[in-house]
Amino acid sequence: MNFSDVKALTFDVFGTVVDWRGSIISDATAFGAAKGLSVNWEAFIDAWKTCYKPGMDLVNQGTAPWNSVYSIYRKKLDELFLEYNITGLTEAEKDHFNRAWERLNPWPDSVPGITRLKQKFIVSTLSNSDFGCMVNMAKNAGLPWDCVITAEIAKRYKPDPKVYLTAIELLGYRPEQILMVAAHNYDLAHAASHGMRTAFLPRPAEYGPGQTTDLEAEGDWDIVSDNLEELAEALGA
Amino acid sequence: MNFSDVKALTFDVFGTVVDWRGSIISDATAFGAAKGLSVNWEAFIDAWKTCYKPGMDLVNQGTAPWNSVYSIYRKKLDELFLEYNITGLTEAEKDHFNRAWERLNPWPDSVPGITRLKQKFIVSTLSNSDFGCMVNMAKNAGLPWDCVITAEIAKRYKPDPKVYLTAIELLGYRPEQILMVAAHNYDLAHAASHGMRTAFLPRPAEYGPGQTTDLEAEGDWDIVSDNLEELAEALGA
Repeated sequence: MNFSDVKALTFDVFGTVVDWRGSIISDATAFGAAKGLSVNWEAFIDAWKTCYKPGMDLVNQGTAPWNSVYSIYRKKLDELFLEYNITGLTEAEKDHFNRAWERLNPWPDSVPGITRLKQKFIVSTLSNSDFGCMVNMAKNAGLPWDCVITAEIAKRYKPDPKVYLTAIELLGYRPEQILMVAAHNYDLAHAASHGMRTAFLPRPAEYGPGQTTDLEAEGDWDIVSDNLEELAEALGA
Repeated sequence: MNFSDVKALTFDVFGTVVDWRGSIISDATAFGAAKGLSVNWEAFIDAWKTCYKPGMDLVNQGTAPWNSVYSIYRKKLDELFLEYNITGLTEAEKDHFNRAWERLNPWPDSVPGITRLKQKFIVSTLSNSDFGCMVNMAKNAGLPWDCVITAEIAKRYKPDPKVYLTAIELLGYRPEQILMVAAHNYDLAHAASHGMRTAFLPRPAEYGPGQTTDLEAEGDWDIVSDNLEELAEALGA
């Protein structure tokens, strides 16, 4: 396949570029140790994550007004603190815990791969993250984005068409000049439905050792690579 | 004044960070020489620039729907080509000419100043530019933004309140944690009216040798610096 007219790459971030689950469990474990709490943090974090999709669905269905990811997670976090009998935290401590999503570690290939791809293409996020979270994460993790595009700009979440169409309009290129990079087949299917090119990058450890989804390509994606350095190689960057 | 709670700097770009007039005259002069055209390019460019404010005003007044800067300039450019009897250009040549706004040279202090400020703060654009134009300009000029925020996200132009409020919401900080950097007093007055901090940076050559406006601070701005390296110094970056 010829990619000579591709100008920009848009990246899903949570799971595709950063190891959210491993990072947050490690962040929470350190927090728990400092506070002398005895909690199964893996279970806590997996329970925390369950609020994400339903919270976004309410926005995309028009049932709820725009609601940031930050506030979706914060509401659930406060519920979990109650459920786990974790009491006496200050507002600053709760806010810091909730902002763990800004302190995620990239997979080992992410920074070198994106740095290499950036020499040849515009590299942008296209994430359901809040905009500020994505900017702070990039600074913390050294992710060298040319620009940050997130659901918050479209006021809808992926896979709502408005998110992909907003990215295409903002970047100012034709859809086929933009390549979506993701570890999730649904994301690529929706990007492709708007004419974007697609690269699948399996991240079999995203959901921990028992992961059963997105282990392989489930569509006719333009590229399948094992990691971002391989993707750079495939794109001649 | 204490700036310890400032987290992000938002920069006006045209005039403040890049020398649009000098760059575009030089770009057009090279184009004219290659085409064997005898044109007073200074007058041509000054005439071209006159479409900018009226075009934005129509959007902000609600008289016109959203209209990109790219299309505002392109319409006027086609009129000027007719007026100057410049004929026979291909669509690709006209598009290239119009995209001169993506090929602007930074003032000499811009890249070193922003690079230094980026070590301590989030550095973002807050420009009336189209988003894609700003991304391409950053790549061409080596401007190391953490993120790009432009009028196109708000679908209004500065000084419409929606532009400043959109930037504040996206960055996710309180207005007083964000400092607007601009060479234009009107921009700072509007930023301050929304609670943002302000830094004025005169650029007395922006409009060429005869410039009469924005030669000095016309408000009680938090900082006045001669250039971006001085601003970095003032902010302890």
